[in-house]
Amino acid sequence: MYDVEKVRADFPILSREVNGKPLVYLDNGASAQKPRVVIDAMTHAYEHEYANVHRGLHYLSNLATDKYEAVRGIVARFLHAPDPEEIVFTTGTTEGINLVSYAWAAPRMQAGDEIVLSVLEHHANIVPWHFLRERQGVVLKWVEPELDGSLDPQKVLDAIGPKTKLVAVTQMSNVTGTLVDVAAICRGAKEKGVPVLVDGSQGAVHRPVSIPEIGCDFYAITGHKLYGPSGSGAIWIAKERMKEMRPFLGGGDMIRDVYRDTVTYNDPPMKFEAGTPGIVQQIGMGVALEYLMGLGMENIASHEAKLAAYATTRFKGLNWLNIQGDAPGKGAIFSMTLEGAAHAHDISTVLDKKGVAVRAGTHCAMPLLDFFGATATCRASFGLYNTKAEVDKLIEALELCHELFA
Amino acid sequence: MYDVEKVRADFPILSREVNGKPLVYLDNGASAQKPRVVIDAMTHAYEHEYANVHRGLHYLSNLATDKYEAVRGIVARFLHAPDPEEIVFTTGTTEGINLVSYAWAAPRMQAGDEIVLSVLEHHANIVPWHFLRERQGVVLKWVEPELDGSLDPQKVLDAIGPKTKLVAVTQMSNVTGTLVDVAAICRGAKEKGVPVLVDGSQGAVHRPVSIPEIGCDFYAITGHKLYGPSGSGAIWIAKERMKEMRPFLGGGDMIRDVYRDTVTYNDPPMKFEAGTPGIVQQIGMGVALEYLMGLGMENIASHEAKLAAYATTRFKGLNWLNIQGDAPGKGAIFSMTLEGAAHAHDISTVLDKKGVAVRAGTHCAMPLLDFFGATATCRASFGLYNTKAEVDKLIEALELCHELFA
Repeated sequence: MYDVEKVRADFPILSREVNGKPLVYLDNGASAQKPRVVIDAMTHAYEHEYANVHRGLHYLSNLATDKYEAVRGIVARFLHAPDPEEIVFTTGTTEGINLVSYAWAAPRMQAGDEIVLSVLEHHANIVPWHFLRERQGVVLKWVEPELDGSLDPQKVLDAIGPKTKLVAVTQMSNVTGTLVDVAAICRGAKEKGVPVLVDGSQGAVHRPVSIPEIGCDFYAITGHKLYGPSGSGAIWIAKERMKEMRPFLGGGDMIRDVYRDTVTYNDPPMKFEAGTPGIVQQIGMGVALEYLMGLGMENIASHEAKLAAYATTRFKGLNWLNIQGDAPGKGAIFSMTLEGAAHAHDISTVLDKKGVAVRAGTHCAMPLLDFFGATATCRASFGLYNTKAEVDKLIEALELCHELFA
Repeated sequence: MYDVEKVRADFPILSREVNGKPLVYLDNGASAQKPRVVIDAMTHAYEHEYANVHRGLHYLSNLATDKYEAVRGIVARFLHAPDPEEIVFTTGTTEGINLVSYAWAAPRMQAGDEIVLSVLEHHANIVPWHFLRERQGVVLKWVEPELDGSLDPQKVLDAIGPKTKLVAVTQMSNVTGTLVDVAAICRGAKEKGVPVLVDGSQGAVHRPVSIPEIGCDFYAITGHKLYGPSGSGAIWIAKERMKEMRPFLGGGDMIRDVYRDTVTYNDPPMKFEAGTPGIVQQIGMGVALEYLMGLGMENIASHEAKLAAYATTRFKGLNWLNIQGDAPGKGAIFSMTLEGAAHAHDISTVLDKKGVAVRAGTHCAMPLLDFFGATATCRASFGLYNTKAEVDKLIEALELCHELFA
């Protein structure tokens, strides 16, 4: 039994007020709040167990190294990935995808080579490929979603041509909550010999992930959306792809020997990790993932599905509200606009006065907003600690907006 | 009056024991411990004021953004840099130097172009340039230190030729504590029209830094060595150089508009900051720098100079101890080897049993260790909270090593 009130008590910030009202935090798509265990683990690390990792032989350094390296195993377990050596630590999905762009894609792509990506993508899964277009003449092939915001896997596969070198696709839209059948895309792409990168920034937060079931080549996650610290993250990379990658950032840890005329590199995954890493925030991410696994990702998915269903029903009663995207099975992320004069930024400001935190803008997904013909929307994105009562508060605040701006 | 006991009380970890002995933490060159105010600021941020930055209009997002952006001003003040807009947030010096290598150097260097760097450099200021050698045929021109570990600025300037595009040099060696006259190097290089990157990883920790007095083009610092959180950092970049830089990491925040066929970029410094940043650790770094400025960098320098002088005197009494480098004015960082059979790793293990944390190995500076003919050394690196009594404990533990291994 998933006890959301018990879960809420784990998150210190949820008991605070904003503008004199209890905080209703519906900006989880941007970043999630942190449970007490994550905050305490970081405090404990700094107060009792801090030192640099990998390079020392003294007690604190060994201790910090053990705790830090153990997170590789936790991430692997969370993703059901067979081998912790396939986990590269990053500062988040953005760095993870840039790593793939710089270290795997850039050296192996020629002018005219193609990358297939969907219009659903977050800028983090667009701009690194635009770099290759600008710098190397790589061609971006865009796959249109359906009008309900869903993405047809077959359309992605149909876009693959003889010059396609990579498919880059999100598992879940951060705007519409669309769930993408990435396993179907990976199966089809594999038949055509094309690697697939999956942006798991949102997907991994809301339901169980199994790398073997997905069958991708790259899977990136970001710790701060997974109820972990800012600046934490990881990317799972198939061993075969790792072998094809040159180093990305240069510095300590990623080298074996440095001479004046030459340099040799460490084995993966450390080949792709340069300098002192985010030691304490990665330890914190490990605690966050353990916390999620303790609650059970299936239970979280089920709780959020109920929230999504309830919100959808309530939204349907508001004929002045437009929701962008209603793909079957979508997650509890809702992009919305109000009929009439209210700008998304005004709406979010009114909601904020009621303690309801939502995001307004383009949500780092301008091509998708263009697709919906919107310049900006409001986004309410739910997390594991949100409640039906909070859906009601959102609705109340939206009704107030409607009254004010209608 | 600098009261070191009062300072020590600010650092929770210093009251712990290691192997049944009070911790004597002399691994500050690898990473420094954190004062209570830094740890508390991060806890407070996660418990009360956390949200993603830049993208929201709700209360918590505005609050987090204000606190995060204020750190740019703190870093500027710490470096005596005139304009916070010249501060780019990074995850540390390694990312900062890689940013310069990828975004400034790579697109403007041809095969045969030269980078002048010293044999004192840390791998973070070597490997990014090796990438340009491997990938683009750039030539690395190495400047030898003197036998005492000092670096003659004139030798650096003499190495500059018509094909030199950059000088990359450390302000303080992380192995020998050598202080480099980077201002003299910058003056001479400027006359020749060659930009200078200064690695301030160690230099900024131990004495006041003034960017206008140094006169460099790039100055990189790392938060975790400055008593701030892991994964924090910044690089100061001259406005003129910023204009010459293309983006590095692609994603949110660094863009203005993203379309299917084109992308436009944000203004600096945000042009060089992609994705959700290390929000809370950068806020923590700001608190750490305020803490340092509160103590006074001159006072810290003076305290550490006394420690260095005392340690040097005591080391001179040990005729079986070799210290690598004794440049005039050097900082309180000592690389050492023992005559006889004791390997650096064995020494550090024995010291650890006595609670004394030092580093053993190549200290991410293999060319410098080669210069000294060493394959590994022990390094004792002092910080603002270390005491003369801890120098004595180090000496005692070294004497035990000498007895064990002589």
